[in-house]
Amino acid sequence: MIQADTSRAMQMALDAADEAARQGEVPVGAVVLDAAGDVVSVARNRVEELYDASAHAELLAMRAAAVKLGSPRLTGCTLVVTLEPCPMCAGAIVHFRCERVVFGAYDPKGGGVEHGPRVFERPTCLHRPEVIGGLREREAALQLRTFFQRLRKG
Amino acid sequence: MIQADTSRAMQMALDAADEAARQGEVPVGAVVLDAAGDVVSVARNRVEELYDASAHAELLAMRAAAVKLGSPRLTGCTLVVTLEPCPMCAGAIVHFRCERVVFGAYDPKGGGVEHGPRVFERPTCLHRPEVIGGLREREAALQLRTFFQRLRKG
Repeated sequence: MIQADTSRAMQMALDAADEAARQGEVPVGAVVLDAAGDVVSVARNRVEELYDASAHAELLAMRAAAVKLGSPRLTGCTLVVTLEPCPMCAGAIVHFRCERVVFGAYDPKGGGVEHGPRVFERPTCLHRPEVIGGLREREAALQLRTFFQRLRKG
Repeated sequence: MIQADTSRAMQMALDAADEAARQGEVPVGAVVLDAAGDVVSVARNRVEELYDASAHAELLAMRAAAVKLGSPRLTGCTLVVTLEPCPMCAGAIVHFRCERVVFGAYDPKGGGVEHGPRVFERPTCLHRPEVIGGLREREAALQLRTFFQRLRKG
């Protein structure tokens, strides 16, 4: 069941992704909610701006949330993100002990949750978050498609 | 073949891991070398210090190297690290386009290169670095074993 908090967070993540696109970054946005459903952090992709290939929206949102909460563990928290996390971000979700992951568009090429290495499904995976995929899927996918179409047209 | 640059870098990484242990962090150290074999960055695990579950030595070393080189791509670079990278760091190695990864101890429980999701071996993996495992394996493994033994003794 998707609660109102999660729906609002996905709208914030979609808005953050839009802002990323305006800055020439791949449009992905992410929000961390605490156990009460309150917003702890919002972030967008900043790879080009920061010269940091790891500056994906999810990683930045989780890092900011952990600093804000004063712990490297996001116990009870939900990560809401517009795109299926990649293997790097899926691995980070495990390390941060995020309780739930809600994502928008599926990513057959770059995803690491429902595709590719399926990080959470490995027997060695130490922490398995609840995963809900496909929330606002069409809008999230459209943001990405529009961005890459414009990029190709140069 | 392991070149002198790489051997020296592994010694620096082992020293950084020792420093991590002294600070109460899991002892892992990492160094990035550029294409000429010169040291670009050195980092150690700082998870507890930074409240950042993603602050693994590899990720910090690659982020620092990319900022220093002014590009989110570490083309031609080698990552030297005392422990087999986890799935998160393996995913980051792909995003940073690191050309070569040299690691010390194998990590059957937490590794993501030769164990677990084996990130580089997935058909969807966009970049496959050269991988050399087991350099100074015994010393690197001993650092970790000693750290965890002391931790258990409290």
